[in-house]
Amino acid sequence: MSNDNSIKPWGGRFSEATDAFVERFTASVNFDQRLYHHDINGSIAHATMLAKVGVLTDAERAEIIEGLEAIRAEIVAGKFQWSVQLEDVHMNIESALTARIGITGKKLHTGRSRNDQVATDIRLYLRDEIDAVAKELTRLQHGLVGLARANASTIMPGFTHLQTAQPVTFGHHLLAWNEMLERDYQRLMDCRKRANQSPLGAAALAGTTYPIDRAYTAQLLGFEAPTENSLDSVSDRDFAIEFCAFASLLMTHLSRASEELVLWTSAQFNFINLPDRFCTGSSIMPQKKNPDVPELVRGKTGRVNGHLIALLTLMKSQPLAYNKDNQEDKEPLFDAIDTVKDCLRAFADMIPAIQPRVEVMYEAAKRGFSTATDLADYLVRKGVAFRDAHEIVGKSVAYGIDSGKDLSEMSLEELQQFSNTIEQDVFNVLTLEGSVAARNHIGGTAPKQVTAASERAAQKLSQR
Amino acid sequence: MSNDNSIKPWGGRFSEATDAFVERFTASVNFDQRLYHHDINGSIAHATMLAKVGVLTDAERAEIIEGLEAIRAEIVAGKFQWSVQLEDVHMNIESALTARIGITGKKLHTGRSRNDQVATDIRLYLRDEIDAVAKELTRLQHGLVGLARANASTIMPGFTHLQTAQPVTFGHHLLAWNEMLERDYQRLMDCRKRANQSPLGAAALAGTTYPIDRAYTAQLLGFEAPTENSLDSVSDRDFAIEFCAFASLLMTHLSRASEELVLWTSAQFNFINLPDRFCTGSSIMPQKKNPDVPELVRGKTGRVNGHLIALLTLMKSQPLAYNKDNQEDKEPLFDAIDTVKDCLRAFADMIPAIQPRVEVMYEAAKRGFSTATDLADYLVRKGVAFRDAHEIVGKSVAYGIDSGKDLSEMSLEELQQFSNTIEQDVFNVLTLEGSVAARNHIGGTAPKQVTAASERAAQKLSQR
Amino acid sequence: MSNDNSIKPWGGRFSEATDAFVERFTASVNFDQRLYHHDINGSIAHATMLAKVGVLTDAERAEIIEGLEAIRAEIVAGKFQWSVQLEDVHMNIESALTARIGITGKKLHTGRSRNDQVATDIRLYLRDEIDAVAKELTRLQHGLVGLARANASTIMPGFTHLQTAQPVTFGHHLLAWNEMLERDYQRLMDCRKRANQSPLGAAALAGTTYPIDRAYTAQLLGFEAPTENSLDSVSDRDFAIEFCAFASLLMTHLSRASEELVLWTSAQFNFINLPDRFCTGSSIMPQKKNPDVPELVRGKTGRVNGHLIALLTLMKSQPLAYNKDNQEDKEPLFDAIDTVKDCLRAFADMIPAIQPRVEVMYEAAKRGFSTATDLADYLVRKGVAFRDAHEIVGKSVAYGIDSGKDLSEMSLEELQQFSNTIEQDVFNVLTLEGSVAARNHIGGTAPKQVTAASERAAQKLSQR
Amino acid sequence: MSNDNSIKPWGGRFSEATDAFVERFTASVNFDQRLYHHDINGSIAHATMLAKVGVLTDAERAEIIEGLEAIRAEIVAGKFQWSVQLEDVHMNIESALTARIGITGKKLHTGRSRNDQVATDIRLYLRDEIDAVAKELTRLQHGLVGLARANASTIMPGFTHLQTAQPVTFGHHLLAWNEMLERDYQRLMDCRKRANQSPLGAAALAGTTYPIDRAYTAQLLGFEAPTENSLDSVSDRDFAIEFCAFASLLMTHLSRASEELVLWTSAQFNFINLPDRFCTGSSIMPQKKNPDVPELVRGKTGRVNGHLIALLTLMKSQPLAYNKDNQEDKEPLFDAIDTVKDCLRAFADMIPAIQPRVEVMYEAAKRGFSTATDLADYLVRKGVAFRDAHEIVGKSVAYGIDSGKDLSEMSLEELQQFSNTIEQDVFNVLTLEGSVAARNHIGGTAPKQVTAASERAAQKLSQR
Repeated sequence: MSNDNSIKPWGGRFSEATDAFVERFTASVNFDQRLYHHDINGSIAHATMLAKVGVLTDAERAEIIEGLEAIRAEIVAGKFQWSVQLEDVHMNIESALTARIGITGKKLHTGRSRNDQVATDIRLYLRDEIDAVAKELTRLQHGLVGLARANASTIMPGFTHLQTAQPVTFGHHLLAWNEMLERDYQRLMDCRKRANQSPLGAAALAGTTYPIDRAYTAQLLGFEAPTENSLDSVSDRDFAIEFCAFASLLMTHLSRASEELVLWTSAQFNFINLPDRFCTGSSIMPQKKNPDVPELVRGKTGRVNGHLIALLTLMKSQPLAYNKDNQEDKEPLFDAIDTVKDCLRAFADMIPAIQPRVEVMYEAAKRGFSTATDLADYLVRKGVAFRDAHEIVGKSVAYGIDSGKDLSEMSLEELQQFSNTIEQDVFNVLTLEGSVAARNHIGGTAPKQVTAASERAAQKLSQR
Repeated sequence: MSNDNSIKPWGGRFSEATDAFVERFTASVNFDQRLYHHDINGSIAHATMLAKVGVLTDAERAEIIEGLEAIRAEIVAGKFQWSVQLEDVHMNIESALTARIGITGKKLHTGRSRNDQVATDIRLYLRDEIDAVAKELTRLQHGLVGLARANASTIMPGFTHLQTAQPVTFGHHLLAWNEMLERDYQRLMDCRKRANQSPLGAAALAGTTYPIDRAYTAQLLGFEAPTENSLDSVSDRDFAIEFCAFASLLMTHLSRASEELVLWTSAQFNFINLPDRFCTGSSIMPQKKNPDVPELVRGKTGRVNGHLIALLTLMKSQPLAYNKDNQEDKEPLFDAIDTVKDCLRAFADMIPAIQPRVEVMYEAAKRGFSTATDLADYLVRKGVAFRDAHEIVGKSVAYGIDSGKDLSEMSLEELQQFSNTIEQDVFNVLTLEGSVAARNHIGGTAPKQVTAASERAAQKLSQR
Repeated sequence: MSNDNSIKPWGGRFSEATDAFVERFTASVNFDQRLYHHDINGSIAHATMLAKVGVLTDAERAEIIEGLEAIRAEIVAGKFQWSVQLEDVHMNIESALTARIGITGKKLHTGRSRNDQVATDIRLYLRDEIDAVAKELTRLQHGLVGLARANASTIMPGFTHLQTAQPVTFGHHLLAWNEMLERDYQRLMDCRKRANQSPLGAAALAGTTYPIDRAYTAQLLGFEAPTENSLDSVSDRDFAIEFCAFASLLMTHLSRASEELVLWTSAQFNFINLPDRFCTGSSIMPQKKNPDVPELVRGKTGRVNGHLIALLTLMKSQPLAYNKDNQEDKEPLFDAIDTVKDCLRAFADMIPAIQPRVEVMYEAAKRGFSTATDLADYLVRKGVAFRDAHEIVGKSVAYGIDSGKDLSEMSLEELQQFSNTIEQDVFNVLTLEGSVAARNHIGGTAPKQVTAASERAAQKLSQR
Repeated sequence: MSNDNSIKPWGGRFSEATDAFVERFTASVNFDQRLYHHDINGSIAHATMLAKVGVLTDAERAEIIEGLEAIRAEIVAGKFQWSVQLEDVHMNIESALTARIGITGKKLHTGRSRNDQVATDIRLYLRDEIDAVAKELTRLQHGLVGLARANASTIMPGFTHLQTAQPVTFGHHLLAWNEMLERDYQRLMDCRKRANQSPLGAAALAGTTYPIDRAYTAQLLGFEAPTENSLDSVSDRDFAIEFCAFASLLMTHLSRASEELVLWTSAQFNFINLPDRFCTGSSIMPQKKNPDVPELVRGKTGRVNGHLIALLTLMKSQPLAYNKDNQEDKEPLFDAIDTVKDCLRAFADMIPAIQPRVEVMYEAAKRGFSTATDLADYLVRKGVAFRDAHEIVGKSVAYGIDSGKDLSEMSLEELQQFSNTIEQDVFNVLTLEGSVAARNHIGGTAPKQVTAASERAAQKLSQR
């Protein structure tokens, strides 16, 4: 209780200074100072508008803007003294402004409140970060699509239940990842659209008695429009939750790709090589080369899911309008942003450097009766009903397991044990090349389709 | 182990029957039977396409469709025998079809797999449910906007930190809820757009060797387009997660409104009356009338957040393509759908029936120095810098607390103790009516603005 | 609004019947009827106590108990008519009792409320279910420990980062799973201890004016003691949350084992065979044999995590004492219980049936320079500092990758390129058997230690 | 890629330096440096043991310990240079040791790995933090129990559904909070017991070939025993999850108390005063005094729930043994620890400073027909069946609502309208004092019981 509240923007009504621990506990400046750039931009727009409507003179406006720019330069240069007693980024900057330009600084807060100010700051900050995320995401997708096109004919086993299912191409597999990311991009843009609305002017909760021009500040700050309701404007944190929902789904997708990269670099799969620069070793086992990057990305999924839950829990049951709880919106959002940017960067760097072991994949695809479906389809084309064909092939496979032979390794006589519909031409459909080429429709794994799909994907990316 | 796998669609390769408990444990028919309608629609479209491309004859197609419609009628009539041994809705229906029409039934599954079939079914089902949710949501918004318009001038205390902040109108408060729901509606439509893509034709994971026409089935089923990648099509569950993310945020909004309804019906607030038909009593305390509906809605928020986490956890780190894990996608999605539909219905019925206690709200707004900001703004207009005005009013409030007087109850002399800038005209700004009317800009609480805002909102709703 | 509230236990003060949809929306009987057994037991104990303290006569007590037992028999026989209008299991049973025995039935609810009644019911139910879960968990651990003991010398590669790390024994690996489950068992017992307290007598929230004997009902119901505070007793749901926290961690452990089972049954690993009865096939790919049971268990982890979050979200910020929100405690808890019982049963059946492919594991362990650490340790024993030894072996491995030779396949001359400290005896430490046998301390992978550890584990289990 | 891997503890096998971004992305030293104290303690114990078993000489051991203590002093003094290139706290310290004492430093890592080292460090750290949390929790409980005892007779309305239910005492209400915290304390101790096991000696995953003495290091570090299985020891993070589960439940309890504090400080309830030092004001509304501390604590619940989900998601489906994902265990755990310590401290300071407004509470209890249950119980004692008594009182309440009279304000004649069993003595049970005093059994709200309960609670606390 050693502090004096006279420094506070609200000390007038209080008879006792804030408890020192409480002051530290409730202050946000340690994490919200990263908003300084957008806070200053918001203040400049506010001052510009106040001058336009006659609440400030042009000279006052100029003085305020000059002061704020000087403070910005000081912060950028690392010379600004942040104070926990001044609670948050807003009061730190306003207080520095008044110290610098005197009484005019005290006029800046006319017609606004920290409640609409912080909502404006976070939206501005988030909008810039969304653009940065979109850029890395696009870079990653470019890398994926390029690698896919180069591997449109590279055959690998396709899995369901991690059991060999049917041959696919490596390019086709990579494009599956791209589809996930394409949806993520769309969701990110939808989130941007809803975040890009201006709450400035909502003031504490009810609007203000000054003749403010909300459309003008919205325009100055590049927002699409002012928000519709002041109570909602200061209490809404949907944009943070929607971003975290986007981020959780993106991380879920990266976790799936990561899982596969980890599998593929194992000695058992050995489908790809990750260059040493994306791996680290062991302090005790000298032979180790660990796929740290995908493992870490996979692990970071939890963190982002956690932030989503943190924000949903935070907002649950809060009565309107602003409550102090909302101060807890920032750290989860900031960390979710940082995490997805880092993970996307790591992936965007790493993906184009993947070296597929083409022969290993091919050999793996040959095992596991991967062309069993092709045999069934062959029988259907010869007039057998699908369900019966399935039964015939099932028995051939059981025979193959016992005798240690793949379907393509059986003689015609052996195959005919199970159906005398089978003839010499069956061996055409039992090759890997024949199998993939036959899946020749939109979305299918035929090299021709994969090439076309990667071109469509590349074109879509080029239009962003 | 008492069962025989010959009934299974995949028994050929197996030498041992499924364990009876495993059979029950892995079966999904108990919960996925609710997809029957969309499963049959998907099968009809598939058969129609197979006939178009020559895989089925027109007679076979007609036979299949007739058979499926007969099965649908049986299910609707509650006469269909679901079997756990047949695992899921798909095999139950296909098996019934074959029992009914013979070998032609076995041809239906040509060129598809349960993997793309179930993905198609859920997307069709979800699309219909999204439309049902949208309808209830719109009904609720209509009710809210109507009540808001009727209460554009009804004054109540606005709160921040649950402390009296500034007077607002009840209509303004209700429109804040409407803004939350408006964003929910937009998110729902964005989700619909991404869900409405056809995975049919992806088959097991790689596409199929039959000359299928995916654009045609997509069109028959009302999908926007076929999906781009077969591996992604069978493994993707983004639509379920995105719906649950929408639902969590919607429930978070309803929980906030619920919290306020609970507060407002308490003896301490007493701001509204909820008609008896939305309340229940106590088995032991004869005087109780409990706001069960908002309490229960508030509680159901947890359930939906839980489903979102269930699905995100489910998909985390899953390698492509389909894994059995994905069977767990349905129950959380289904329950999230049911829950939001019920909660929206309850709210849509209840909101228009709310009876505000206008005098109680008004009296509450008069207490708590709710016009303190107006006094500060008055001083600013007289030339005092905002920060200094804030300090002056803070001291007036401290005096008011000690002397038990609200600002409007002090004499001019008392007020002038704190600033001799204060003159007789101060009493105009210290009335509740003056206070709300003065916040006269877009998003502000002035009755004029609230009326205009409710008209804009109503117009938006009418254009859906 | 077609219903009449006269059937309700609280209709006296109400002037309007409950809305029909609200009645269904707020009713819990569809899911809480599974508490009937414990509800009846609780009522019998309550009636017994009321007679002991003189609130009921012995004849009334006998009549009530007889009535309740008749109702129980009816429910067990599936003949009981549950009514949504009667809201919940409690009122359904009480109403049936009064219908059966007349006015004496109305006396049963003396000195209690549904608030303490439901808290009692859930605790009794949960206690029984905890015991059932403990039994399946113990059965699973027995199976694990038995398989571990049988494979105390079976060598397989140990992995970190899914890269070959060092040879371990299969038994050692299985005992790692057992350790996880051992902690789960302890947590379950800790949860049981805290759940096993009697809230009966807390009544609505404040206790009751009747001369009840809470210690006596606690004793009759097998509780350890009555709870300490009536407000807490009716609002506390810690036991449900603690159970779900236990369950989430258990499922996380099962998901880790499941992941490994899925890996091990892949064509690439091929370390084990799962008998057909625990697998299912594909409707389209005739060769498939999918490890459905571990996949499904892995997927169900999400569901249980979701229930934990549902309950935590539910209780967040609830003011005391009972709120209707709490009705939402049951479904997540019930489903968590059902899920862990099923998953444990599936695992307990499956684990002892695992067939390790001993040679495949052995060959895999020979690859990947798994004895590199042994070589480093060898050098240290010859006087090289560990960090320098690590560097030497790292270079040997790099040479081995280039030349395609494992360490044990290099000649002495080749090895001596990297350190002339290496002598002929190095080949003793480069064998798999030598490597595992050397890790001969508590917790180490030496067969001797694994055998001893499995014996200690078995003994612990036998003392439960 | 500007970095050179020669500084890394695992560079030998690598042909390419780590990518600079990857280096930063995968490094943990920025957050794991807070483990330095326990890392050094672990190393000292390890060196002491290595000397005991003859792997190090006594001189080497002494040199290592001296070096480590010098490094510790440097860190404490803020002079230690942490390097991201050295990845983590372990390699930073080991590298500094070697720089300081030369080749002997390189021997410290003999017989261990970073995998068991970090597991040891976190457990040691967590154990200390658990003790610190326990201390703050105990302090808070002392404050609660003291305030409860002082208010054993202070009457307030008890609520269910936030509707007035029955009169209770303020002390009784506070003791309900204490019961929640008492369970939290027990859970924390259970967590401590399971965390306090020594993984040291598990080495990378399989144990080590050196003749280590794990029981000795366990004893030196104050652990209860060595862990049983090396694979489990390096992959287990149960202790972190269990702590976060404890923390989520604790925060849930604090959120409930916070919600009530926020309600009670509102103008509508006005039940308590929180001293100014625990509150802050508004930058725009001069009259505001906001209950920031409880609001912020309530908000922080989300954060801790998020960490729990982060950790559960992290561990889901991880194959054994250590994976890089696990690096993500630290930040959620650390932040959960910091958060609960801060929140407990804030509450422990604030609770004893709460000033109840005794008259306001008393007046509120008189309203809302809070003694309706007492009237019903009165009728039962006169021979009316409980369900009939409930009906009679329900009708009296309906009359009271219409006529604006509480039950105690009606005349005998008015009451007798509803039952002629009511006589003059009814007014004894309709007083608040009579009502609370009558709930006179264990757990009941009678002042006598509350005093006894607070004494039992105080005694329990004194035995910790």
